[in-house]
Amino acid sequence: MADRLAQFEDYRHLMNARIDQIDHLGIKRFFNLDTKAYEDGALDARTKELMGLVASLVLRCNDCIDYHIIQCVDAGWSDEELYDTFNVALVVGGSIVIPHLRHAVESLDMYRSRKE
Amino acid sequence: MADRLAQFEDYRHLMNARIDQIDHLGIKRFFNLDTKAYEDGALDARTKELMGLVASLVLRCNDCIDYHIIQCVDAGWSDEELYDTFNVALVVGGSIVIPHLRHAVESLDMYRSRKE
Amino acid sequence: MADRLAQFEDYRHLMNARIDQIDHLGIKRFFNLDTKAYEDGALDARTKELMGLVASLVLRCNDCIDYHIIQCVDAGWSDEELYDTFNVALVVGGSIVIPHLRHAVESLDMYRSRKE
Amino acid sequence: MADRLAQFEDYRHLMNARIDQIDHLGIKRFFNLDTKAYEDGALDARTKELMGLVASLVLRCNDCIDYHIIQCVDAGWSDEELYDTFNVALVVGGSIVIPHLRHAVESLDMYRSRKE
Amino acid sequence: MADRLAQFEDYRHLMNARIDQIDHLGIKRFFNLDTKAYEDGALDARTKELMGLVASLVLRCNDCIDYHIIQCVDAGWSDEELYDTFNVALVVGGSIVIPHLRHAVESLDMYRSRKE
Amino acid sequence: MADRLAQFEDYRHLMNARIDQIDHLGIKRFFNLDTKAYEDGALDARTKELMGLVASLVLRCNDCIDYHIIQCVDAGWSDEELYDTFNVALVVGGSIVIPHLRHAVESLDMYRSRKE
Repeated sequence: MADRLAQFEDYRHLMNARIDQIDHLGIKRFFNLDTKAYEDGALDARTKELMGLVASLVLRCNDCIDYHIIQCVDAGWSDEELYDTFNVALVVGGSIVIPHLRHAVESLDMYRSRKE
Repeated sequence: MADRLAQFEDYRHLMNARIDQIDHLGIKRFFNLDTKAYEDGALDARTKELMGLVASLVLRCNDCIDYHIIQCVDAGWSDEELYDTFNVALVVGGSIVIPHLRHAVESLDMYRSRKE
Repeated sequence: MADRLAQFEDYRHLMNARIDQIDHLGIKRFFNLDTKAYEDGALDARTKELMGLVASLVLRCNDCIDYHIIQCVDAGWSDEELYDTFNVALVVGGSIVIPHLRHAVESLDMYRSRKE
Repeated sequence: MADRLAQFEDYRHLMNARIDQIDHLGIKRFFNLDTKAYEDGALDARTKELMGLVASLVLRCNDCIDYHIIQCVDAGWSDEELYDTFNVALVVGGSIVIPHLRHAVESLDMYRSRKE
Repeated sequence: MADRLAQFEDYRHLMNARIDQIDHLGIKRFFNLDTKAYEDGALDARTKELMGLVASLVLRCNDCIDYHIIQCVDAGWSDEELYDTFNVALVVGGSIVIPHLRHAVESLDMYRSRKE
Repeated sequence: MADRLAQFEDYRHLMNARIDQIDHLGIKRFFNLDTKAYEDGALDARTKELMGLVASLVLRCNDCIDYHIIQCVDAGWSDEELYDTFNVALVVGGSIVIPHLRHAVESLDMYRSRKE
């Protein structure tokens, strides 16, 4: 089961490379803008990753959730802080978020166990 | 124009009181859960308000945006930090968020000018 | 304030007539399909109106909420039954539904007071 | 193919237990509120399950659809009544709902065949 | 009533200027990317405006609808072609789009009458 | 990997046949309306397929994306024209569309390689 996260990362890298190869200027600029949005600015990168996670949860996108959970763990957020983030997203987004909460908790457990 | 924000607050208080009066146990508990989600926990209340603002922007709800902008300003977030928040929401949610960005910037300006 | 509901009904009738006048076969058939979806079938019309109200709340469309509240009241649903409906929608859709809950409660009060 | 539904139920129970183990008060209360929203009240539990199904369809969540189809069948709703529910959701939510309608019909067939 | 469209355009220009004044590099680049997405490329600008209108309708954003209707009329699309566009959006997005269809038809009529 | 697209087509045909067998008049009419919406009218079928693709991308439905990519390729749209379509959808819908962009690019590559 721990492979699900690794498979997503492989697929993500493979297809991002393919999209880069397409060489569409607008799409390339969008990807660049997306990367820069999470860099240190008036707010630090750590906080922005948390915001990316909340947005991914309420918009109910599992791939985006996985990506931001990896980033949040790497940025040093603890499980308790991430659970608090899940809770805000659950209250804002409602029970329709629950399947994505299950996914998020599983992804977090997977990524923690990989780092041990 | 500064009245738009005040009108929203008046309407919000009036209707929340009416909803409380309805006395539906499930609805009352939901409102209570919603309040508690933004209180200090593993994450502090300030950070949670920022997360509420991001969620409101990507879900495109003007009333929710206004509520969280007021909370964020009261929590001490600067304009530059809120602009960075707007930027993350804009990149995640796309140009469909732009009308709500206009609303958010106007609400922020209104609330700052009231506090001067 | 009781005028908000009446204004919506007037605007709805005016623009539906204008859309009918456009005479686009696909659009006309869609409107016809929409009307028929709420008629007695395996499920009765009363239950379907309740389902239309839940869908309108979780999809966060005030005009649709107003339309279905009027239909639900006319179909004989009590306030308590409609509050239970609001509660299901609130739990499914989350706090982002709250501004629409305020709208729905106000519309229900308006329509009841008109019928007295 | 009949395993898809069983796998979902297993995964749902496994991860709900894991989420319970996390022991976040807000999340636990939300799950409790979610359970209670579908219990008998002014509206009976049967009708509320139907409302949960409609909401799941228009919000396009396959896991939620599967959960509520199981509940609706157990509550005694007939195929014809559930097809009428699918139709309301299809008209409200549009052709973007069709992939979820395919999923819902397959899940309903699976669950009926298991009960035979 | 013709003022609604003019008011939107005034507000849009005013707030876009205010957002430009904020001078956030990410936000400025996003607005630039948004503008460029609708310019002639492999697809011509006319077709892209039609795509912007469809996206605005299914995502249910009245301000975005108004903006793209103005652009589509200026690009030379006829009423019949725009009605066909409305129909695709209505079928994809369902009856929840109807309030926005009413808005779109009214905006189109307003803009045509201004140009006479 | 080329099987993913074929599997989707098989499943789509199988379940559409099952839905047809259910014989619900409203659902049958909706499917008919959906088919007709993409036929030549004031706008030609080619342009409407492109609009269906944009709508599917911003509403983030992979099955709908696959269906419309197949239709768009069969209608003669080039890769460059489809990339331009992806770009409009990406800008309108934001980075939450990116996982669906990856899916769309892969589906397009798969379908082109099948036709060689």
